[in-house]
Amino acid sequence: MRKLYIIGIGPGNPEQVTIQAIKAINQVDVFFVTSKGEAKNDLTQFRKEICERYIDEPSYRTVEIVDSGRDPTIDSYASRVEAWHQQRALIYEELIKNELQEDECGAFLIWGDPSLYDSTLRVIDQVISRGLIHFDYEVIPGITSIQALAARHKITLNGIGESICITTGRQLSPGLISNTENVIVMLDGKCSFKEVLDKEVEIYWGAYVGSDKEVLLSGRLTETRESIEMARSSAREKNGWVMDTYLLRNPSARRP
Amino acid sequence: MRKLYIIGIGPGNPEQVTIQAIKAINQVDVFFVTSKGEAKNDLTQFRKEICERYIDEPSYRTVEIVDSGRDPTIDSYASRVEAWHQQRALIYEELIKNELQEDECGAFLIWGDPSLYDSTLRVIDQVISRGLIHFDYEVIPGITSIQALAARHKITLNGIGESICITTGRQLSPGLISNTENVIVMLDGKCSFKEVLDKEVEIYWGAYVGSDKEVLLSGRLTETRESIEMARSSAREKNGWVMDTYLLRNPSARRP
Ligand SMILES: C[S@@+](CC[C@H](N)C(=O)[O-])C[C@H]1O[C@@H](n2cnc3c(N)ncnc32)[C@H](O)[C@@H]1O
Ligand SMILES: C[S@@+](CC[C@H](N)C(=O)[O-])C[C@H]1O[C@@H](n2cnc3c(N)ncnc32)[C@H](O)[C@@H]1O
Repeated sequence: MRKLYIIGIGPGNPEQVTIQAIKAINQVDVFFVTSKGEAKNDLTQFRKEICERYIDEPSYRTVEIVDSGRDPTIDSYASRVEAWHQQRALIYEELIKNELQEDECGAFLIWGDPSLYDSTLRVIDQVISRGLIHFDYEVIPGITSIQALAARHKITLNGIGESICITTGRQLSPGLISNTENVIVMLDGKCSFKEVLDKEVEIYWGAYVGSDKEVLLSGRLTETRESIEMARSSAREKNGWVMDTYLLRNPSARRP
Repeated sequence: MRKLYIIGIGPGNPEQVTIQAIKAINQVDVFFVTSKGEAKNDLTQFRKEICERYIDEPSYRTVEIVDSGRDPTIDSYASRVEAWHQQRALIYEELIKNELQEDECGAFLIWGDPSLYDSTLRVIDQVISRGLIHFDYEVIPGITSIQALAARHKITLNGIGESICITTGRQLSPGLISNTENVIVMLDGKCSFKEVLDKEVEIYWGAYVGSDKEVLLSGRLTETRESIEMARSSAREKNGWVMDTYLLRNPSARRP
């Protein structure tokens, strides 16, 4: 029976990989690698580094997944992404069938953790429910960019007994901040924190957290807002891409 | 200068420890260990196992922190916990001063990740703001029980573009579920999911996730509720303690 590993490799620091991930990586015959977007070279480079650093007897192959991209003619964000996942399911199915022998082991190396804003598991689910190919699979957790951010700022994500909301830039709204003590924002291409006007809110921001490009800033949002925007855009200019996450903490949040 | 490490060691699987954590552990002269509650023996045992498995040249000491416990005469939960943290800050200060030489390295090994429902960093902050002793410190992220739970169920925590709310059993309310697609509940001693009556809600539950005691259950909440309650209480009986976490997914959640 074919075996697939979906392996979390952490958010960019090669030492933030677990022993469990390293053991799994050492059993892999074929790595399936998606290349996509501007960050492509650096992310691919990181995956290479992980393999080179931790694989004892390198005898693996690498198979590139050519990403079809999203269809811009589909209006709704969710439908656009869903259509794209369906296409990817067909591609994965083909690749697993053609590139992985019956007794071999394949793997996807996932940035951060596979359960957090990553669609590989959803695509794998679709491949399985199509029922045309069969394989075992196992998921290996990884350090998320959220954990890495908190560690570098030396903070806890929650105050005593408080809740935490993880969301995207797209969904960040002033209402959300007013009634949530701790909001973590990911996938934000637009500095959505600019829309937050509450005076008491504090921000803990980080880009490329854990890597040598890391930039960290924190403070009262009203006082730090501009420096973050500037840091973000100059980082983006310098590196051609930027990945950032932040925690907004609202000490006077009112629970709904 | 004294150095302190606050090290996340994952939620109970000795292979879910990172290379970064292992490197740090190998530099430690003194481990500060808190013993507390019923789970004490197993958790202490796990920390021992990590040290025995990963430390190359064992020459470390272990210093036990005798926990004062919370004062039951304080009414509010938050104030009770805060008072307890203040006491702990005094204890930590004493121990660091007396047990750690100026050029030595101390560490706290944190279950899961230090940023998630753990108060060690808050107590360290209090020690620092008292200003009586000085030290460098570094935080090393760990796999959280949430990541481990999702990996074992092979699920993502969020649907496409959705938000995730992490909360405690104490704060889980029917209202929260009605307007949040994905709610993760931790620190729930009372099976608070019993109060959730929405027919569409699905639950992904796990106890002792990652360890050999692991129990996993999932399905429609209405259909799984009772098996989970039973599994939880028989696990508790058998082991003397139980640690469980779950994701509630509400496909018909309405955002506020
Ligand atoms: C598609 S999501 C993947 C998240 C990933 N699975 C994880 O566990 O962190 C990508 C988003 O994660 C965040 N991110 C990932 N790595 C990061 C890093 N090293 N520093 C800051 N943010 C990061 C950014 O918000 C980015 O837009
Ligand atoms: C004080 S909190 C600490 C959380 C920890 N810092 C983390 O990152 O997971 C303890 C709670 O975490 C959850 N938990 C920790 N380890 C777990 C495990 N192995 N399986 C299931 N739940 C776990 C339970 O909800 C438990 O009540």
